[in-house]
Amino acid sequence: MKFCSQCGHSVTSRVPQGDNRPRYVCDHCRTVHYQNPNIVAGTLPVWENKVLLCKRAIEPRYGTWTLPAGFMELGETMEQAAMRESREEACANVEIDDIYTLISLPHVDQVYVMYRAQLLDLDFQPGEESLEVRLFSEAEIPWQELAFRTIQYTLEKYFADRRHGRFPVYTHTIRANNRAPQEEPEE
Amino acid sequence: MKFCSQCGHSVTSRVPQGDNRPRYVCDHCRTVHYQNPNIVAGTLPVWENKVLLCKRAIEPRYGTWTLPAGFMELGETMEQAAMRESREEACANVEIDDIYTLISLPHVDQVYVMYRAQLLDLDFQPGEESLEVRLFSEAEIPWQELAFRTIQYTLEKYFADRRHGRFPVYTHTIRANNRAPQEEPEE
Repeated sequence: MKFCSQCGHSVTSRVPQGDNRPRYVCDHCRTVHYQNPNIVAGTLPVWENKVLLCKRAIEPRYGTWTLPAGFMELGETMEQAAMRESREEACANVEIDDIYTLISLPHVDQVYVMYRAQLLDLDFQPGEESLEVRLFSEAEIPWQELAFRTIQYTLEKYFADRRHGRFPVYTHTIRANNRAPQEEPEE
Repeated sequence: MKFCSQCGHSVTSRVPQGDNRPRYVCDHCRTVHYQNPNIVAGTLPVWENKVLLCKRAIEPRYGTWTLPAGFMELGETMEQAAMRESREEACANVEIDDIYTLISLPHVDQVYVMYRAQLLDLDFQPGEESLEVRLFSEAEIPWQELAFRTIQYTLEKYFADRRHGRFPVYTHTIRANNRAPQEEPEE
C-alpha cells in the first residue's frame, strides 16, 4: 500500500496513537488502513464412498488437485461461501453437513474453513477455474498431486475419521516451509 | 474506496474479465482491489464457575459488557489472536481449551471465532479498551447490558452446555435487525 484509498495522498507506515503495531496511515485525511487475514471457505463433497476433487485450471498450482474452496466474499456467510465455491469450481450441488477443519496459515494471512458436504447429484462438471472434476475413492486420491497442504490435511483427517464414523472439528496451523508457495492466495 | 492504493489514480467499480462481481479496479496500473470479510477472534475465559467479562471503554457500545475479542491481525493464528485480545483487553493470561462458536455476520462482513479458555491466574485488570474487568457467575451475567449478540449467543450456549459437560462446536449466522449497530466493527 502506497496511497490512501480514500483521498489518494501518500500513506506512511507507523504506529497510530493508542495502537501497538504499524499501520498504513494517511496524514492528509487521517484514515488508518487496517489489513487483516482472509478466509478461504470450501467443501469436502462426498458421494457414497467417494470424494469430489477439482483439477486446477489456474495458478498457483495449475494442474494439481484440490477440494473446491476460495476466498469468502463480502455479504456472505461462511456456509454460503463454501457452497458458492463448490458451484463455481465444480458446478456441484452440495448440502453442508458440518464444519470440519479450521486451518490458520499465518505466513500467507489466510484461514481455511472447510465443511463436510453431501453431493446432491452427479451433474458436476469443471467450472471456469477447473480443468477436470471427478470422484475419487480413498485408494484413488492423488496424494502426490494435491494443490495445498490444507487440502491434504483435510482429506487425511476425513479418511481416518470415516473408519470409526465420528467427525470432530479440527483447528490446526500450517506454517511456512519450503513448500510455502503452495499456500499462495488462490484468487 | 476511491483511489488505487498502489498508484494513487482513481478506481472504478466494475466486474473484471473472468470475474462475476464488481470490484474496485485501477485502469492505470491494472490492480484489482479485492475486499473480504474480517475475522474477530476471542475467548470465553473461565475461572471455577465464573466467566471473565470486560466493560467496554470504546465505541461502539461503550459501557456494555463483552468477552475479550477483536480483529485478527496479519501474521497470527486464530488462537494467537484470541489470546492476544484477552491480554490486551483484560490483561488476562489464558490457556485455550477448544474452539466453540463460529458466527457469520454477513451485514457487517465479519466472522466471530470464539474459544473456550481457562483463566490461569487472577492477575487480570482492565486493558486500555476496558473500563472494568470482572468475573461473573451465571446468575450475575448482565444479560441486558451485553455489547453484541455474538457475545450473548456464546454465553447462552456455554451455560446451557455446562449443565451436561459437553461443548460441541457451533456455527451460526446473525443477521441485521434493528439492533444491527451492535455488530459494527470493534476496532
